[in-house]
Parts: sequence; C-alpha cells; structure tokens
Amino acid sequence: MTTVRLWSDAEAEANPDVRAVFDDIRTTRKSDFVNNFWRGLANDPVALKRTWDSLKAIMVAPGALDPLTCELIYMAVSATNGCSYCIHSHTAAARAKGMSDAQYAHFLQIVGMASQTNALVTTMQIPVDEAFKVGR
Amino acid sequence: MTTVRLWSDAEAEANPDVRAVFDDIRTTRKSDFVNNFWRGLANDPVALKRTWDSLKAIMVAPGALDPLTCELIYMAVSATNGCSYCIHSHTAAARAKGMSDAQYAHFLQIVGMASQTNALVTTMQIPVDEAFKVGR
Amino acid sequence: MTTVRLWSDAEAEANPDVRAVFDDIRTTRKSDFVNNFWRGLANDPVALKRTWDSLKAIMVAPGALDPLTCELIYMAVSATNGCSYCIHSHTAAARAKGMSDAQYAHFLQIVGMASQTNALVTTMQIPVDEAFKVGR
Amino acid sequence: MTTVRLWSDAEAEANPDVRAVFDDIRTTRKSDFVNNFWRGLANDPVALKRTWDSLKAIMVAPGALDPLTCELIYMAVSATNGCSYCIHSHTAAARAKGMSDAQYAHFLQIVGMASQTNALVTTMQIPVDEAFKVGR
Amino acid sequence: MTTVRLWSDAEAEANPDVRAVFDDIRTTRKSDFVNNFWRGLANDPVALKRTWDSLKAIMVAPGALDPLTCELIYMAVSATNGCSYCIHSHTAAARAKGMSDAQYAHFLQIVGMASQTNALVTTMQIPVDEAFKVGR
Amino acid sequence: MTTVRLWSDAEAEANPDVRAVFDDIRTTRKSDFVNNFWRGLANDPVALKRTWDSLKAIMVAPGALDPLTCELIYMAVSATNGCSYCIHSHTAAARAKGMSDAQYAHFLQIVGMASQTNALVTTMQIPVDEAFKVGR
Repeated sequence: MTTVRLWSDAEAEANPDVRAVFDDIRTTRKSDFVNNFWRGLANDPVALKRTWDSLKAIMVAPGALDPLTCELIYMAVSATNGCSYCIHSHTAAARAKGMSDAQYAHFLQIVGMASQTNALVTTMQIPVDEAFKVGR
Repeated sequence: MTTVRLWSDAEAEANPDVRAVFDDIRTTRKSDFVNNFWRGLANDPVALKRTWDSLKAIMVAPGALDPLTCELIYMAVSATNGCSYCIHSHTAAARAKGMSDAQYAHFLQIVGMASQTNALVTTMQIPVDEAFKVGR
Repeated sequence: MTTVRLWSDAEAEANPDVRAVFDDIRTTRKSDFVNNFWRGLANDPVALKRTWDSLKAIMVAPGALDPLTCELIYMAVSATNGCSYCIHSHTAAARAKGMSDAQYAHFLQIVGMASQTNALVTTMQIPVDEAFKVGR
Repeated sequence: MTTVRLWSDAEAEANPDVRAVFDDIRTTRKSDFVNNFWRGLANDPVALKRTWDSLKAIMVAPGALDPLTCELIYMAVSATNGCSYCIHSHTAAARAKGMSDAQYAHFLQIVGMASQTNALVTTMQIPVDEAFKVGR
Repeated sequence: MTTVRLWSDAEAEANPDVRAVFDDIRTTRKSDFVNNFWRGLANDPVALKRTWDSLKAIMVAPGALDPLTCELIYMAVSATNGCSYCIHSHTAAARAKGMSDAQYAHFLQIVGMASQTNALVTTMQIPVDEAFKVGR
Repeated sequence: MTTVRLWSDAEAEANPDVRAVFDDIRTTRKSDFVNNFWRGLANDPVALKRTWDSLKAIMVAPGALDPLTCELIYMAVSATNGCSYCIHSHTAAARAKGMSDAQYAHFLQIVGMASQTNALVTTMQIPVDEAFKVGR
C-alpha cells in the first residue's frame, strides 16, 4: 500500500515526460525493469526527472568511488534510516555489481559495530579529540 | 562535557586491565594516541576490552572489504545517526587510509542522495518489488 | 500484529472511561470511525484520555496554523521518524482536509530536499552562521 | 569545526563555477549573505550547482504550497533528524517569511505531539486501518 | 543559542500562568532549580502546563515502575534520539535517584548492544518469529 | 523476506561452529527455540559467536541491573530505532521475565513522553544547564 499511485507501463507510455525518463532508466541500466520507486515518483514528472538525473550523475556515471563501494555506502545509509525498500533494492544492486557473501558479511559487521559505538559515544557525550579537528 | 570520567594516561597505567587494552590500541595503531572514546569506556574495563576486541576484529584485521571501504561504511552509518564524534574520528581515519578529496566529495553526494530517496520512499510507502526479493 | 490488545467497540462500551473518550473522538470528528491507535491506547484509559485531550487541543482546536498546515507538519515528522501507521493516517487526514495532489507532490519534494541537506550538513559538520543566531 | 573547508568570498570569486552559484544565491535571495552550507558544498562545484538548483526549484520557485508552509515542513524534517544547523537556518528563514510567535508555538506543539504518537504507535506496533489504505 | 527566549525568574514571576507551573515544579521537586527546558516552554504557558502535568503524572507520581527504572527508560530513548540536553538532564536525574556507577555501566552496555542488534536485524530484514506474535 | 538465508536446524547441525552457538543459546535459555535473528547471523559463524557471547554477557549474566530492567532499556532503544523485530522479541522477553500489563503501560507512557520532550528540546535547541554538567 502506497500513499501515491504507482504508474503502469501503459500510463508511462502515454506521458512524454515520464516515458522519456523511463526510457533513459532502461537504456542506462540495460534492463527493461523499472522499479516501483520511479513508478511512484512518476506522479510528479519534474521531480522524477530531477531525481533520476541526480541519481544517474552520482551512482551511475564514473566517479571517484567504484560502483560497489557506492552501493555499500547507499546500503549503510538506508539501513541506518530503516528504509526497507532501499535496503532491499540496494542490496540487490550491490549483488548485481559483484558483492560477495563474504563482503556482505563484513559490511553487516561494520554497520553493527558503528551503530554500537555511535550509541556509546552519544550516551557518554564524548567530546571530539583535538587530533580529529582537521576539517580546515 | 561527558556523562563519564575520561581516563588519563596515569589512571590507565594504574589499572592492569585498562592498561592492557590501551597498550594494544597503541601497538595495533602504531601510534601513542588513544582517543577519548576509549578513555570514556575505560570506566568499565570489561566493556572496554570487549569493544576494542570487536573493533579490532572488524575494522583492523584483514577482511573481505578493504580498510578505506570499511571506513566509508562506518562514516555513512555515523553521519546518518548524527554522531558528531564518530563523523570526525572516522573521517580522519578515512583520510589517514588514503581517502582523496574527490572520493570524499563523491561519498558526500551518495549520503545526500540516499537520504533523499530514503525519505521519498518512506513518505510514499513504496512496496518492495518482487525482483528485489532475493534474500533466500 | 501488535504488542497490545486493540479494543473492540463492545469492550470500549463496557468501560466508562474508554467509552467517554471514544464518544468524544466520534463527536469531535463527526464520524463513527475510531482508528486503531486509540484502540491500542485504550488499555490505559488515563493515557488514552491524556493523549486524546492533547491531540484535540493541538490538532483540532482552532490555532495559529490552519488545519492542513498542521497535518503537513505532522506528516513531515512521521515520515522522518519512519512511522508507517502515522504516515498513512495523517496523509489520509491531510487529504480529507483538502490537500491537493499538487500540494502533496510539493510536500514530498520538500521532505526529500530537507533530508538530503540535513545529511550533507551533518556529514560536513557545518557550524551555525552568526546570522542565524536569532533565538533570543 | 567542519570536515571540509568553508570557502571564503575571495576563493569563490576565483572559481567561475562557484562564483556563478554564489551570484545566483545572492540575486535570488536579494541579499549579500551566503551561508556556511553553500561554502562547504563549494568544494564540489558540480554538487553545489545541482543542490542549489534543486533547492531553488523546490523552495524558492512558486509552488503548490506557500513559502512559509514550505519552511515549516523543512523545519519539521530538520528537527526530527536532529540537524542543529538546519533547525537554526530554517527557523530563521521561516521568521523572515512572516512566521509569528504564535505560529511557532503551535508548530512546536505539533512536532512534540507527532513525536509522541509516532513513538506510541511504533512501540505498540499498531497496524494500519483499512480506512487509511487510500493510496491508489 | 536557542530558537526561543529562555524565561528568567523575574519574567516568570510576572506571568501568573507561568509562575504557577514554576512554583509547582519547585514544590514537587523540593528544589529551587528550574531547568532551561521549562524556561523555553514558558513562551507558551498552555503548552508549559500541559507538558509539566503530563511529565508529573508519568515520571513523578507513583507508578508501576520505580523512579530509577523510569529514568533509565527515559535515558535510553533520549540517547537513541541523540538529544544531548535530555541525555544530560536525565542522567543527572538518574544519579540523583540512586543510579550507581555499576548500574550506569550496565545501562551503557545494553544501549550499545541493542543499537548493534537493531542495526543487524534491520540490515538483514529479519522477519518476526511466530513465537513472538503474542500481542493479542 | 530477508537479505540473507535463515539457517534451518539441519543446516546448523551440520556446521560445528554454528551448532556450538545454537546449543549454547538453547542451554542458556533452557528452551529449544532459536529465533530468526541467530538463524540470519549464522551465515557468519564468527560474528554469530561474537554477538551471542556479548549478548549473554550483557543481558543474561547477573549484572548491576535486574533482568526486567535490562529488557525495558532494550525495548526503549529498539522502539526509538523503529526496529519491529526487536520490539516484538524484547517485549516478549520482558513479559517472560514478569513484566505486568501495568508496567508495560507505564513503559509506553515514558517512551512517548521522552520522545515528545526530546523533540521539543531539539526544536528549541535548549542549552544544557550548568547544573547538569556533572560528568567529570
């Protein structure tokens, strides 16, 4: 159950703006599959295009970090935000990009460890060491 | 200001259990610096040892993911949890492990993008696509 | 599946304290429908009354913000907290109070944008500008 | 203390891409003030432009929701995410857009009420009522 | 720096509604000290009274849970929400109610452990066992 | 649906490391039931053992806090993190350790109250009173 309508392929076909984005998703990903997230965003074709363009620039175009590392970071944020949909879609994407079972197991342990130490630090209200103040 | 006492080196020296962990931190990291987190945890030597042993196994010992990727995942969790201390300490650690400015800029964009789509997905309550149900 | 019993109308009828609140909910909302949240809270009639009285004062009584704006704020908090039930119930309430599809689409984009910039700010640990220190 | 360098006006002047965005911020807002968030993002001129363009489209251009309502939604997300910087900057923006003390007081009560009921619902794991399943 | 004015004792004295609540806080707590939270809420005397009345009913009046346990639960929520102010005020309150160093150390470990397993469970998307479905 | 395989009893039997942990869980809890969390973690036998050993030390071994209080703290963290699985499993555990309906009702009110005041404090950005700075 969603709070918005998920657009079918037929509906998307009938709207030039939505169709253009769906076509680009398919071409970029070399797959016919357009997942539900985009079908929900399609209710706002301008937002659909802006979001897809940003995602393509950040997650698909060659960047300073390799594709698998990008997905692992995305998964870490999604897990911490408790977004089930995003956990599933980006874990699947990471596997498609070559994540091994051993890498996933390691990832899982890091997420657990970070969550634990984050909580310990916050509860104790530990002040930042001078040595870490390297921002500028 | 913390909710616990941060142990000085002199205090740590005087407690064999705490000293053993501080020594191992120094040896493992090849540095004299012991950051505030461990000085706060030192109030509970058993927890100090358990937490350090876990962190060493997950973040220091060779694993399926390389050290920089581990730090990027840790940073992503810490940023999403809003833990200032952890953001600073692990961003510093990532830089020490070779994170370039371009990699950090890419990391930042992924964290922003993931946070945005997490929020969009959650607000629209998008259901998980069948294609992503690959868990088992 | 809940961790508490959801009270049926028959059970509510049999308890004068619960019945009084359910009656006031129905009268206030001009509807026979009492949603599951109140049926769960009914296990603690004192808490049920206190929570309903607060909600009525804040969300139903005329206030400085109009009813639709109140719902949009409620939705924004609920979405950010990831509370599915609250997202659904308050999105439905906002629609009942006249939220248009265009307004919902705009709302969605703001929630996404705020989540993204919140994450960027937190990751970069941006300090508050002097110009914003207008609290007092 | 930040994890990135905050660009000064002189540095921004010297980079055409950054200068173009800073100029647009100043023109759009009819103010010389460029707040720290943009000075941090300036380290990645492409991200700076993409983020500003999105923010301008969503928060500045005329939309289905009026400017003050947009700020209140932004504030609600920022408060729930615990982003101090964003709370300060958007509370200041809301005041600049006419938010009265009475409106702010009402806003505050809604954020508190929503946070409370979100927590109650999540703890009790209340299932969504059929009546709210209006998404499609 | 706050987004609201913190009321001084003199200001509170001059407003009968605020004074009545401040007096009750002092009487109830057998202390002259009124902490900043109430001084911020004083800008909305109705909200001030409602919040204090609720807090008094839940945290001060005799209930099913003893006072220290109440504070530990409050601390756990506050730590997980990352509310520094609340962490400090309720840790101080717990100590005033007799929390020993050993109890605090145990509390800290539970918060860390729960945060870790919460993250592991969410990342793996573990389904609730039938045996736990005992709600009704 | 999970992102990992949940190990059956037969699979666990066939792996000495996993079997040893499952046996210890059964012996420690005096029950044949091994819940899904451990069946998911079993994919990484080293992490399985480390996590169970930590949980046993913190939540099962006699400590400064009694078993029911430990569960209430665990529930408070899990509820605030929005971890459905953990809410269900630890609410069930608390009931098994004697939590009464009245205690659960009180717990629920504290979680709601803390969430509300956390949000109010964060939105108003209330500074920590000097009187609470007792950490060191």
